[in-house]
Amino acid sequence: QWMMLDWKPRRPDMLVDPFGLGRIVQDGLVFRQNFSIRSYEIGADRTASIETVMNHLQETALNHVRTAGLLGDGFGATPEMCKSNLIWVVARMQVLVDRYPTWGDVVQVDTWVGASGKNGMRRDWLVRDCKTGETLTRASSVWVMMNKHTRKLSKIPDAVREEIEPYFIDSSPVVDEDSRKLPKLDDNTADFVRKGLAPRWSDLDVNQHVNNVKYIGWILESAPLPILESHELSAMTLEYRRECGRDSVLQSLTAVSGTGTGTGDFLDAGNVECQHLLRLEGGAEIVKGRTEWRPKYANNFGGMGQIPAESA
Amino acid sequence: QWMMLDWKPRRPDMLVDPFGLGRIVQDGLVFRQNFSIRSYEIGADRTASIETVMNHLQETALNHVRTAGLLGDGFGATPEMCKSNLIWVVARMQVLVDRYPTWGDVVQVDTWVGASGKNGMRRDWLVRDCKTGETLTRASSVWVMMNKHTRKLSKIPDAVREEIEPYFIDSSPVVDEDSRKLPKLDDNTADFVRKGLAPRWSDLDVNQHVNNVKYIGWILESAPLPILESHELSAMTLEYRRECGRDSVLQSLTAVSGTGTGTGDFLDAGNVECQHLLRLEGGAEIVKGRTEWRPKYANNFGGMGQIPAESA
Repeated sequence: QWMMLDWKPRRPDMLVDPFGLGRIVQDGLVFRQNFSIRSYEIGADRTASIETVMNHLQETALNHVRTAGLLGDGFGATPEMCKSNLIWVVARMQVLVDRYPTWGDVVQVDTWVGASGKNGMRRDWLVRDCKTGETLTRASSVWVMMNKHTRKLSKIPDAVREEIEPYFIDSSPVVDEDSRKLPKLDDNTADFVRKGLAPRWSDLDVNQHVNNVKYIGWILESAPLPILESHELSAMTLEYRRECGRDSVLQSLTAVSGTGTGTGDFLDAGNVECQHLLRLEGGAEIVKGRTEWRPKYANNFGGMGQIPAESA
Repeated sequence: QWMMLDWKPRRPDMLVDPFGLGRIVQDGLVFRQNFSIRSYEIGADRTASIETVMNHLQETALNHVRTAGLLGDGFGATPEMCKSNLIWVVARMQVLVDRYPTWGDVVQVDTWVGASGKNGMRRDWLVRDCKTGETLTRASSVWVMMNKHTRKLSKIPDAVREEIEPYFIDSSPVVDEDSRKLPKLDDNTADFVRKGLAPRWSDLDVNQHVNNVKYIGWILESAPLPILESHELSAMTLEYRRECGRDSVLQSLTAVSGTGTGTGDFLDAGNVECQHLLRLEGGAEIVKGRTEWRPKYANNFGGMGQIPAESA
């Protein structure tokens, strides 16, 4: 379904987005932006981290709203949402990563929105290698509205609906919904627990809240190092349950499926699945999640570990 | 002296760096790259963080080496350095920030190198607002060579000197050297100590070491929150003493100058100066530093807190 977006290879000099702010394509309903992967966006593997990928998704979503002229407060809310003190909050995020780009690669991110039930909005992303058109990442998310003062969820007011509905695309999600229930994790069912995680000043966004993307780093804090070293994240489903403020102290719990107790046997394993929970010290759930991991280098022969030749 | 680089305002459509990989200017000795500030590069103040600024410096340094055709190993070392198992390590970094850019701003980073003593290289940076030409940041650093295997410092071999010297510019540092000695900080002289800082998997670079820029976040972990909230970092001097690996556990110490004990009186104060030490739990010094802070908004009337209007 998401193949509706034609891919045409382009000569570099035809790319006309010098400031990297992106532009509207596809009859005004899809927003497209290119990102050149920078040296500080790659990790020990020389590939972009999952946080980098998620940052690019966030940036295109905001620039989409901005380019559509709907940026009321400067961070995603429309003018009518501002009047009603409403903000967007993410309820669910699902990401599939086929391949992580490396330093110097240019990725093209397409994003668009649609309805999700009666009071939600779905936002999808399709990330491709700019040179080859190869799909790198697909992601789908569900957003709902929250009152900024009461912090309660809200229906979409009619005035807001009129602002945003003209931008909705009627299509299937770019990622099939993973409807498997996320099991409830606790101290007994978790294999690994990491306590005392506290936001740094630099983790806060303009609302003085912890940015969604930062949660991912914390979730992975309790994933065992042998998995991080030998595997790469291929899929992730996150359900956001509750906000986390600047004074929160968090615990990160991970359960690994298909292995017994230790960490040594991951290296022989094929794909690995993990369940995650990020909770307040008091017990309240912040984020529930599931991640899937494939052995590193299984999926990217050839390009691995090589810095691309200078093209200029 | 650093005014040698002419500033000419350009129309947006004259900027020809679609991939953001930068280019050589000024008779082949200065490398220039533009960065559009992204939403995830700004913090609670809506301005770019010091880490973002430092990341842009790192990226231009590496792209400079790459564009000059001197990238041997893919991360800054030249071909002759690779043959001798040498890598660059930063010994000293001095940064002055006049103004922090905000989301959507485009900054232009110029960088160039020169000799520093007999066995060092100086690298300078000049960061300007792309629209106005206003100087935002100046930075100067000193780099020395280290043997990758013995981890000992090395002289610059003649073969390496021949590779890099043609790129040296003979000019004064873009920042006057702050020759004040960094005082030795310990548990008695520090006002604030933060213990148990450990690298996350995502803090590691391709050499499995903690990237220089990450140290800054740790240094600021022991700076009192009231300073971070009311002041912005205007100057920073860092001396790198020792490497930090993936299994290191660090302590961050800060002493605040000109105040007694508490944290409440920063809000009334004008400029604040801090001394910092990042050390291993065993006591070995990793980084010594000095930071200077000015009251927020003292230096950026007008633009503060505003998202720039969409220019497309």
